[in-house]
Amino acid sequence: MPKPSLDWLLVLVPVSIGLELAGANELLIFVTSAGAILPLAGLIGRSTEQLALYTGPRIGGLVNATFGNVTELIIAFFLILEDKTDIVKASLTGSILGNLLLVLGLSFLAGGLKHEEQSYNARSASIHATSLVLAVTALLMPALFAQSQEAETVLQREVVSGIVAAVLIALYILALVFTLVTHEHLFRTPEEGERPEWSRNKAIGLLLASTAVVALMAEFLVGSLEPAIEDLGLSELFVGLIVIPIIGNAAEHSSAILFAMRNKVDVTLEIAIGSSTQIALFVAPALVFISLLVGHPMDFIFSTFEVAAVGLSTILVFMISSDGRSNWLEGAQLTGAYVIMAISFYFVETL
Amino acid sequence: MPKPSLDWLLVLVPVSIGLELAGANELLIFVTSAGAILPLAGLIGRSTEQLALYTGPRIGGLVNATFGNVTELIIAFFLILEDKTDIVKASLTGSILGNLLLVLGLSFLAGGLKHEEQSYNARSASIHATSLVLAVTALLMPALFAQSQEAETVLQREVVSGIVAAVLIALYILALVFTLVTHEHLFRTPEEGERPEWSRNKAIGLLLASTAVVALMAEFLVGSLEPAIEDLGLSELFVGLIVIPIIGNAAEHSSAILFAMRNKVDVTLEIAIGSSTQIALFVAPALVFISLLVGHPMDFIFSTFEVAAVGLSTILVFMISSDGRSNWLEGAQLTGAYVIMAISFYFVETL
Amino acid sequence: MPKPSLDWLLVLVPVSIGLELAGANELLIFVTSAGAILPLAGLIGRSTEQLALYTGPRIGGLVNATFGNVTELIIAFFLILEDKTDIVKASLTGSILGNLLLVLGLSFLAGGLKHEEQSYNARSASIHATSLVLAVTALLMPALFAQSQEAETVLQREVVSGIVAAVLIALYILALVFTLVTHEHLFRTPEEGERPEWSRNKAIGLLLASTAVVALMAEFLVGSLEPAIEDLGLSELFVGLIVIPIIGNAAEHSSAILFAMRNKVDVTLEIAIGSSTQIALFVAPALVFISLLVGHPMDFIFSTFEVAAVGLSTILVFMISSDGRSNWLEGAQLTGAYVIMAISFYFVETL
Repeated sequence: MPKPSLDWLLVLVPVSIGLELAGANELLIFVTSAGAILPLAGLIGRSTEQLALYTGPRIGGLVNATFGNVTELIIAFFLILEDKTDIVKASLTGSILGNLLLVLGLSFLAGGLKHEEQSYNARSASIHATSLVLAVTALLMPALFAQSQEAETVLQREVVSGIVAAVLIALYILALVFTLVTHEHLFRTPEEGERPEWSRNKAIGLLLASTAVVALMAEFLVGSLEPAIEDLGLSELFVGLIVIPIIGNAAEHSSAILFAMRNKVDVTLEIAIGSSTQIALFVAPALVFISLLVGHPMDFIFSTFEVAAVGLSTILVFMISSDGRSNWLEGAQLTGAYVIMAISFYFVETL
Repeated sequence: MPKPSLDWLLVLVPVSIGLELAGANELLIFVTSAGAILPLAGLIGRSTEQLALYTGPRIGGLVNATFGNVTELIIAFFLILEDKTDIVKASLTGSILGNLLLVLGLSFLAGGLKHEEQSYNARSASIHATSLVLAVTALLMPALFAQSQEAETVLQREVVSGIVAAVLIALYILALVFTLVTHEHLFRTPEEGERPEWSRNKAIGLLLASTAVVALMAEFLVGSLEPAIEDLGLSELFVGLIVIPIIGNAAEHSSAILFAMRNKVDVTLEIAIGSSTQIALFVAPALVFISLLVGHPMDFIFSTFEVAAVGLSTILVFMISSDGRSNWLEGAQLTGAYVIMAISFYFVETL
Repeated sequence: MPKPSLDWLLVLVPVSIGLELAGANELLIFVTSAGAILPLAGLIGRSTEQLALYTGPRIGGLVNATFGNVTELIIAFFLILEDKTDIVKASLTGSILGNLLLVLGLSFLAGGLKHEEQSYNARSASIHATSLVLAVTALLMPALFAQSQEAETVLQREVVSGIVAAVLIALYILALVFTLVTHEHLFRTPEEGERPEWSRNKAIGLLLASTAVVALMAEFLVGSLEPAIEDLGLSELFVGLIVIPIIGNAAEHSSAILFAMRNKVDVTLEIAIGSSTQIALFVAPALVFISLLVGHPMDFIFSTFEVAAVGLSTILVFMISSDGRSNWLEGAQLTGAYVIMAISFYFVETL
């Protein structure tokens, strides 16, 4: 498996710790901790996969569903502690867009250049698309509520946010029950007799260790964020929408593209669209409750700009994936949509 | 047929008349007249069905298409006489949302818990979905017109509303011609040799009588609306969007769910989605003209909030129904979307 | 082929030249030059078709893709020289709406009245629909950018517009490569051994001549636009959205309807939807660059109204065409949507 490894970037873990202890330039700390997160997120992914081979598909699916976006969750957690809820929301939106458009787009493009046409389970794609429309509903309705009211109270915002978040988490769990329990046979992929490369204990150990180090790196990253982006001349929102999601998802991105090139587009879809629905229906709502627990409340009210971007991406992915086939043009179209969104966000200072 | 009967609620008809005559507390009148409407709307539905068995499917379809939402129409009529056009519009929106999300959702859920997967005529669902997108177009364009103009005159609003309403009614009639005349064979459901239980005259008599009593109850309901909702601490809009549609549709709701449990999802869809398109393309535009006739003009300009809710519901139903299959998860998702919308509407005071 | 010919309208070419030279009433010049464009646009279309028969399908497709909307391009060019960029944008929007709703609607209607059901290549329709969603993305994101910023600079608008336009043109070219080169076999229509009626030189000569005369007429049209619409009592935007697109597309319109009546709906779709994607992904972005070259910069930032109209039309066309079948009801529905939009635009003075 000639997979391009990012593991050499692990050297940045001690480097960034050293820089932090030495009180070095914040931009340096930002760049090195960001760089260190790339291979760590990859390690979390690989150890989750290995673990899944021991537990069987059902528990494995559950483990994936829980640990799949743990890096984003941790970064968001530290941002919430700093009351940077706008950046958290932007990074959630950016993660969804990045997965739906950039990852899926590059995967279809790379896969389509090697294979004339690739096919996959349209039904699975359709369930994810429906979940995404639910997410768009959950993003749009509270946003309209907040816009239509001149004097809605903070309490009202929190109640609306809390109930919407609870409904989304419930629907996320129900979708897991559907795909892993009651209708599991519809989604079963042919077993390939894949055997684990790591021992069970190694997988668990690496999962816990890399999660812990990611947490440390995320703290450095968030701590150096403000001075760093000032130096870089970027807006906070652009960093939230584009930069942080790429850091948190780079490992997944490369896996998704690799699977597409090996003509396993079902896995690609699971990574890209599955990750998006997970963020929209699980990570984002969970953060609403976590933020309350730690006393830095974040509501679930996104900007029109963000809702529109997620809405358009959802429609685009639905239309492209509803036939169960992909080709390079569809990849280019998704990637093009990402570029259009990125440039539109580039100059924006407030959403 | 162990159908749960609401007929015992008919006792509320004399009760509410008595309370009204006695000048009792308005909240009591509101609750009793609302309760009385539930079985009456059911009676209208049953007598329409019985009548249809005598007239054959074509005229029967027409009778259904005319009397299907007569309860909503009557309540809306009395609201218009009181110049409560905002509540009328909210109740139309709420009826569409309730049918598309709550009724269809609970039906798919109930049906899906008994049957692993249920199938239906995707083509029929698709025609309804197209009609709904037309309705969304007809809702959105005038709304944008009204928003973009700083000084549009009342006359302009009325002209736009009138023409849009006329186009919708024309398209509604054309869709009836299509499904009942020119392409009737595509929609023919297998005859089951069902024989009428009631005589023709009984059906006609009950239809007329229950319609008349509904009118009386609707008058009481509307008359007691304002003090009642003040007592209940609800906003007028919430009553329009959520409470009134549930009163007017409860009978249909229970039928739709029952048919889904009996694995007749085609009938469920006809009730739920068919009822929505009827309200959007026939009842709502008809009210524009009726309101002009009685000198209390209501325009066809809805709020962004309402248009967005109907638009999202349409997309959701289209995506879920385009494969001609349903399961419990899809039911839960539709119901979840309804809850998200209801909570977003709960605190809203003006749309 | 009893195709209704508009060629007799060519007599308006010398008439409008005479009127212009005589300094006649501007409304007369407007009407005669508009009338003269109708048969000229038809001539451009026919000579392109004839030329395509000599060059083979691949180059023919390219010629069509380039000359298909040359009339609109020329009219827009002269409008840009007069700094009437709002009318240009309105005419681009109107062209897309006219093709998607009015042309396709009337074609399905006319075809559906002769044939119970007509079928076509759903895949081709789906690629166009995806392109249209890309166009909607490209319209919406910059519009939201412009709305969300209080103080975006002209430079920022130009940069966003330029990059979005470049992405669209790139995607347009890639779609051509896909349909004409790498996946050409999917779109091959059965050859009918059609033989050219004109010689190659006649086709080239007529193409160049009619394009040149269209340019002259377009100049007259634009020059007389302002006084003419004042006389007619129409708003500039209505002329841009409804009148100019009908002038520029009348010839295509009649061809599309004719092909539908002859049961060649694939050609109809190619004309109607293909023309829309061409305007959205090629003509409109090209005008952004052309406008910069001639020193009258036009940005790519459309109004919410325009974006919503194009978005709704796209969804409607996607839903109607995704099954690869059409009938008269679908035609009526598309036409009805056009009427609803036209009336909503009628009273609007600024978008």
